[in-house]
Amino acid sequence: MHEISQGLVQAANFSDDERAAVYKVIYNRRDVRDQFLPKQIDDNVLMRLLDAAHHAPSVGFMQPWNFITIRDVARKKQVHQAFSKANEEAKALFEDDRQALYASLKLEGILKAPINLCITCDRTRGGKIVLGRTHNRQMDIYSTVCAVQNLWLAARAEGIGVGWVSIYHDSDMRQILGIPDHIEIVAYLCLGYVEELFDVPELEKKGWRKRIPLQNLIFEEGWRGFNSGLPHLDREDVSTAIPSACD
Amino acid sequence: MHEISQGLVQAANFSDDERAAVYKVIYNRRDVRDQFLPKQIDDNVLMRLLDAAHHAPSVGFMQPWNFITIRDVARKKQVHQAFSKANEEAKALFEDDRQALYASLKLEGILKAPINLCITCDRTRGGKIVLGRTHNRQMDIYSTVCAVQNLWLAARAEGIGVGWVSIYHDSDMRQILGIPDHIEIVAYLCLGYVEELFDVPELEKKGWRKRIPLQNLIFEEGWRGFNSGLPHLDREDVSTAIPSACD
Repeated sequence: MHEISQGLVQAANFSDDERAAVYKVIYNRRDVRDQFLPKQIDDNVLMRLLDAAHHAPSVGFMQPWNFITIRDVARKKQVHQAFSKANEEAKALFEDDRQALYASLKLEGILKAPINLCITCDRTRGGKIVLGRTHNRQMDIYSTVCAVQNLWLAARAEGIGVGWVSIYHDSDMRQILGIPDHIEIVAYLCLGYVEELFDVPELEKKGWRKRIPLQNLIFEEGWRGFNSGLPHLDREDVSTAIPSACD
Repeated sequence: MHEISQGLVQAANFSDDERAAVYKVIYNRRDVRDQFLPKQIDDNVLMRLLDAAHHAPSVGFMQPWNFITIRDVARKKQVHQAFSKANEEAKALFEDDRQALYASLKLEGILKAPINLCITCDRTRGGKIVLGRTHNRQMDIYSTVCAVQNLWLAARAEGIGVGWVSIYHDSDMRQILGIPDHIEIVAYLCLGYVEELFDVPELEKKGWRKRIPLQNLIFEEGWRGFNSGLPHLDREDVSTAIPSACD
């Protein structure tokens, strides 16, 4: 062990069991639409989830996120109405068998989940010039998505399922929640305890799409080995890995 | 326990120790720039990290990500050059003391980290109409960011640090890695084993910004209690929570 310096500390070690728990939560996380139980989520538990989100990485340590909790049934109904309108539009974009399958899917748990949570990104929080955002203006949005994923994983470890609702018009949600223009709505989540989940992602279970083999998604030294000048594995073209069910 | 139905299974339970491990990895994750050790990362370990990323949520189960590994020193040097050019431009955007502080920060570990990893989003993968992306065209990008965060957390549990490099011109990275136009570059990461880390985020440690109190970031039923018609906590204005050091 070499000398600790410059305000650094020994990095926390993870035992085999701890590492296994991290993978367990990653593999057991699901996008939940219909398995929410009515059991309430205590404020202490909710705060643990929000604190997990708050400890996501953020560009320039900007912490651009806000968290809006929604428990009021009337407001949830407004959100559900916004979803329903958009979902009808979405359904019409698919054809034939895919449209029938789409229509059969439950894609949100807005009314069933005890807590809805809107996670936003305040693009003005760090001033105009933000360290690390100078050449990629989206980095603050990406930070906020990292917060979503932290919360999602923490929730699973708490026995709480999360579903991400993305089918609504931004302007509708903005009006329902009174969100000003400089604030970007990144995620609208449904949270509730779950006892049952699908053993694989619901869209896989229901025949919408298949899991792509991981090895088809990896390249070495450049896009499909572009100009690498190095030996690289001759991988199957990724387009052939996409099942025919995916239009 | 009620009856399991519709292809659902009992949701995995997490023991107190397992839940603690999940929070531990969330709280101990850091953006690493300079603490990378030269120790190589075995292919098996790398594949575990990539598989964790591959099990992120994705809109419409689109799995839009690809993973490009970079180990070649000559290519890393090209990337480092692209960073350096952009970082000079970035530095010039800050003034006076902030510029001096900016210049003192090490913001990447491109050459030091044994593996660099570019994570991309193939916006065409699911066809033109993607379930869940119909009303938010960015959802595939957000899915890819979730994959980044999964990998980041899994890496920490493996003793591996990750740093996200965002200071480069997209066109430079695109050219270096041969990335086609329909593919979005989401993250360029540096990966390597670490023994030391900062006990709080490096930018906090070095006086760039402070952690915002969580309670200042939470609203109930709408932006700052907008039109809620419900009792809500009278929270401090979030703008006052931002320390003066943040310009």
